[in-house]
Amino acid sequence: MEITNTGICVEGFKAYGTRKGKYGISLIVSDVPTNSSVMITSNRVIAAPLLLTTKHSKTRNLQGIVANSGCANAFTGDEGLSDAKEMQIFASNQLGINPKYLGVASTGVIGQRLDMNLIRSLIQVTSKDMQNNNDASIAASKAIMTTDSNHKSISVKTRLNSGKVIELGGIAKGTGMIAPDLHHATMLCFLTTNAYIPKEKIDKILKEAVDQSFNVSTVDGDTSTNDMVILFANGHAKNVDIDDNFQEALNFLTCELAKMLVRDAEGGTKLIEIQVLNAKDKGDALKAGRAIASSNLVKTALFGENPNWGRIIAAAGYSGANFNPSNISLSLSGGNIESTLVEGGKIRASKDSDELERAKQLLKKNEIKIILNLHNGRKNATLYGCDMGYDYIKINAEYST
Amino acid sequence: MEITNTGICVEGFKAYGTRKGKYGISLIVSDVPTNSSVMITSNRVIAAPLLLTTKHSKTRNLQGIVANSGCANAFTGDEGLSDAKEMQIFASNQLGINPKYLGVASTGVIGQRLDMNLIRSLIQVTSKDMQNNNDASIAASKAIMTTDSNHKSISVKTRLNSGKVIELGGIAKGTGMIAPDLHHATMLCFLTTNAYIPKEKIDKILKEAVDQSFNVSTVDGDTSTNDMVILFANGHAKNVDIDDNFQEALNFLTCELAKMLVRDAEGGTKLIEIQVLNAKDKGDALKAGRAIASSNLVKTALFGENPNWGRIIAAAGYSGANFNPSNISLSLSGGNIESTLVEGGKIRASKDSDELERAKQLLKKNEIKIILNLHNGRKNATLYGCDMGYDYIKINAEYST
Repeated sequence: MEITNTGICVEGFKAYGTRKGKYGISLIVSDVPTNSSVMITSNRVIAAPLLLTTKHSKTRNLQGIVANSGCANAFTGDEGLSDAKEMQIFASNQLGINPKYLGVASTGVIGQRLDMNLIRSLIQVTSKDMQNNNDASIAASKAIMTTDSNHKSISVKTRLNSGKVIELGGIAKGTGMIAPDLHHATMLCFLTTNAYIPKEKIDKILKEAVDQSFNVSTVDGDTSTNDMVILFANGHAKNVDIDDNFQEALNFLTCELAKMLVRDAEGGTKLIEIQVLNAKDKGDALKAGRAIASSNLVKTALFGENPNWGRIIAAAGYSGANFNPSNISLSLSGGNIESTLVEGGKIRASKDSDELERAKQLLKKNEIKIILNLHNGRKNATLYGCDMGYDYIKINAEYST
Repeated sequence: MEITNTGICVEGFKAYGTRKGKYGISLIVSDVPTNSSVMITSNRVIAAPLLLTTKHSKTRNLQGIVANSGCANAFTGDEGLSDAKEMQIFASNQLGINPKYLGVASTGVIGQRLDMNLIRSLIQVTSKDMQNNNDASIAASKAIMTTDSNHKSISVKTRLNSGKVIELGGIAKGTGMIAPDLHHATMLCFLTTNAYIPKEKIDKILKEAVDQSFNVSTVDGDTSTNDMVILFANGHAKNVDIDDNFQEALNFLTCELAKMLVRDAEGGTKLIEIQVLNAKDKGDALKAGRAIASSNLVKTALFGENPNWGRIIAAAGYSGANFNPSNISLSLSGGNIESTLVEGGKIRASKDSDELERAKQLLKKNEIKIILNLHNGRKNATLYGCDMGYDYIKINAEYST
């Protein structure tokens, strides 16, 4: 597997994106209908474009996507559904494809109607500039940004066991209203590949990738109404089947995109990787990890570079995971520094200890690992989170309606 | 029922409290053993004083409590349990009561041993000043404060149907690591009464009061290792039984104390009352309300006085509560201003509407109601929360180990 420089514009895909003020339009299209898989939010309030895409479109054979930023078109009722449908028809006409084959996605403020004049004009402009190169991919990834401080894009190529080389690309957006504990992913992410993926395998392949990336990432514990991940596979590589090499590449791609989201978290300054080891079962490992990743007290302590490790233990304690406090171990690492705070239930990071001093030093780094060993079984989980600083309040208090 | 000025020093109870730096000691004692009920945290990591009180003391007949602030004595293993025991024995000797009849509570940083020299010296000083008056009650409520900006105390008297007048008092502390969704309360709260409460009724009575007060209040979604509520009933009123008037008074007392905690929340500036109406069942009403009360995005929007009501709907949507988004209504009130944002699934607070303008005005108030009608059944719930401002980050990033 190696990193490439195509973005989502792998063989057979064109893209572009245009912004005007808070609004943006991204278009991605394959030259032929693809085998595709769509995952959406588990929120009971589902935005209109997601309803349209999953209920009234050819989910299994999408040829592309039209996505807007600036307005979520969520909780907008029948009018919102009509707007999404008009967006689908208008964009597919511009692209010269069947509307049923075009997915629709939106991100932005909930409870407002789309500015359809602006949407139409942005689609028109964008559709004239569709290209198959990395600049076009970057334009598409920039146009879906909301509070993102930078665009998020990555691409790789990998060799299947059959010898075929296939390409994969992905873009994503999202810095807030991101939470785990979902059946589905929690932001916008569009993944393209020139591989052929059999229809009966594509959902499972996407789910595995999402479960080890976006579904174990959290910014603020809030789950959006608009989250969507789509994998488009246009089959240009003419491979007969895919194999573990493909899954590995897709897992890598989604994991890197998930980490980009968390690094760019609203108000976050550090990427936190949480490893929960030796849990009784996977569910326990995830529960403990999610409680730690979601705890405001842990997140603010990390922001303050304050080794208040009791908060980590307290979060695991209320998570509902099974463990005996007398058996657990807790350590931190950052840069080349490691600190074992608790070992076999005994405190090693007492006041003025070397362990505590090392913990203070390593917390100054930008990427920190929290390793909690429950010593209660054999299952592990890795999760991604971030700290929480003043800007979280600033961004979310001021984000206007 | 009327408000009185005794604090916890109702008939037969003495109290006092002393502070030195971050440490404080509060003592409360009845002149006779009481009928008592103890509720503690549901966290799997339970602090040593709670283990001592619930497993090795006369939970049903406590005569008093020794509580310290400054150190939680949590996750401190066998040594922590020995320290708690020494605290219990030393204080009961000073008070001249049987150690088994003295509860122990702690609040402060997790994972540090108690400074026993300081604890002993503070107990000695405090025990010499025990008094039966409101000043003594205030001293006790001040000595258990940690990040609290003010002490929390209230007392009432009420007349039972039998004609007996009984007194109730309560003190509480807590501004962070407070969350609902517990079987038990989530801070320190000590309640005293001169009523006789039959042993077979006291747990149920306390649970009802806690369920409609502390258990529906949230500051930050974190559940402490040290939470404890105790009700002491010394029977001096010589009533034969209690009745609904007593329950009403206890509910009032705990609800007022819960609101004091939320008003004094770390980084909070507003008291938010959330009413979820017409849910399918009580569980659904609580789920939706807790998701709204716990959502960082809702809390920061409220701090910013920003009527981003879509976040309230989104939080209800991911809460797991059953409802049809097309049927719900959402309104806000504050001061004398009301705003209906959504009615029967239709947006009334569209851009530049009067409803939205009124919402902006009412959000400037210090006490705000969010009323979400799910139109899906007949069960209601009321919950208490707060907004989230810059000080939440400041207090929790800097709180030292």
